[in-house]
Amino acid sequence: MRLAELSERSGVSTTTIKYYLRERLLPPGRRISATQADYGEEHLRRLRLVRALIQVGRMPIATAREVLATVEDESLDQNERLGTAVAALPQGAESGDGAAQDAADAVARRTVDVLLDELGWAGRSEIRTSAAREVLIGAVAALGRLGYPCEVRHLRPYGRAAVDLGRQDLDLLEHYDSVGEQVEAAVALTVLYEPVLLSLRRLAHAAESTQRFGGATEP
Amino acid sequence: MRLAELSERSGVSTTTIKYYLRERLLPPGRRISATQADYGEEHLRRLRLVRALIQVGRMPIATAREVLATVEDESLDQNERLGTAVAALPQGAESGDGAAQDAADAVARRTVDVLLDELGWAGRSEIRTSAAREVLIGAVAALGRLGYPCEVRHLRPYGRAAVDLGRQDLDLLEHYDSVGEQVEAAVALTVLYEPVLLSLRRLAHAAESTQRFGGATEP
Repeated sequence: MRLAELSERSGVSTTTIKYYLRERLLPPGRRISATQADYGEEHLRRLRLVRALIQVGRMPIATAREVLATVEDESLDQNERLGTAVAALPQGAESGDGAAQDAADAVARRTVDVLLDELGWAGRSEIRTSAAREVLIGAVAALGRLGYPCEVRHLRPYGRAAVDLGRQDLDLLEHYDSVGEQVEAAVALTVLYEPVLLSLRRLAHAAESTQRFGGATEP
Repeated sequence: MRLAELSERSGVSTTTIKYYLRERLLPPGRRISATQADYGEEHLRRLRLVRALIQVGRMPIATAREVLATVEDESLDQNERLGTAVAALPQGAESGDGAAQDAADAVARRTVDVLLDELGWAGRSEIRTSAAREVLIGAVAALGRLGYPCEVRHLRPYGRAAVDLGRQDLDLLEHYDSVGEQVEAAVALTVLYEPVLLSLRRLAHAAESTQRFGGATEP
């Protein structure tokens, strides 16, 4: 496909695509004339990934270039490529540009409504008005825009894990005597356990990936 | 206790404590002479929270002051105080100052070793060398330094949730055909699902807190 179609299908402007090409975040197309190049599905996919890293992951261009170099490095085995690329990602990005009112946003709102309903939270005012709900909708919309899996069935295990952890976290709070102490602990534990959760998920990826794809045996 | 003892027990320098007092992040002590004040256990606790917000949560002073004002606001009920304070927190801070080699760090290393052993990951090279393991140790050490729960039994539910999610995430990857696509998707899904997970945990807190402490019935 030509640059215009790549732009149309990806939703990324031709100016931005040219910028990514200059910055070597996107491999060059197959040249078909002095001024035109042909792009394939792999360019579309790569463009989605670049958007995920830079827009959602808020990654500096230089870091994104390194991550993409690892993704491409065929001298590494799959598990090494996975591990190295993911290790370069900053942890805990907030989701996308927030209030984009597009089709992906509308789909994400419906998906999140169904999920919250399943979790028994749908009608509750503390959920409806929560900033976290908007973050969640933004994250699901970002997944949708980039063509990654984000249906209720994909989100459900995350929702269930959150319910379990929420219960355990509140159990911890009840060990504090006064309301003041409980509120203080809630704030501190929310912040301090987020890196615990994200780093354990990354370790789980490394372990599971090695188990499935890794050649090397245990040392 | 005097300022010197507050500093000694909290591990925060007297200069920093005076700065927090000036910035109204810490309530004033009870004045006992023109130049001296007396501080209580509530100051020690508050100091831990301030460190959690500013050092670990990397929160601007002005935001921390707002969060603390909510924590203190006794005109709100417990659930409102919890909800409002936690809603003001930025999502997904990385853990502390990294390479502090203190007693808390040594304890955290041992705790993490036991946890990873339980999860079946202890001897594995991809885990031992992972940056996420260092983030985890840093986060556990930060919890320990601030006197918050961070034993293996507190971390275990997080570890189990991570194992489940890791498995589901890798199942998703197997739907992609080529190794290249799998690696790209792994990178994108790692970044894009982190805000999903953190925001669902916050929603679970809101729901569980309302259930346990909230007065208001469902609208």
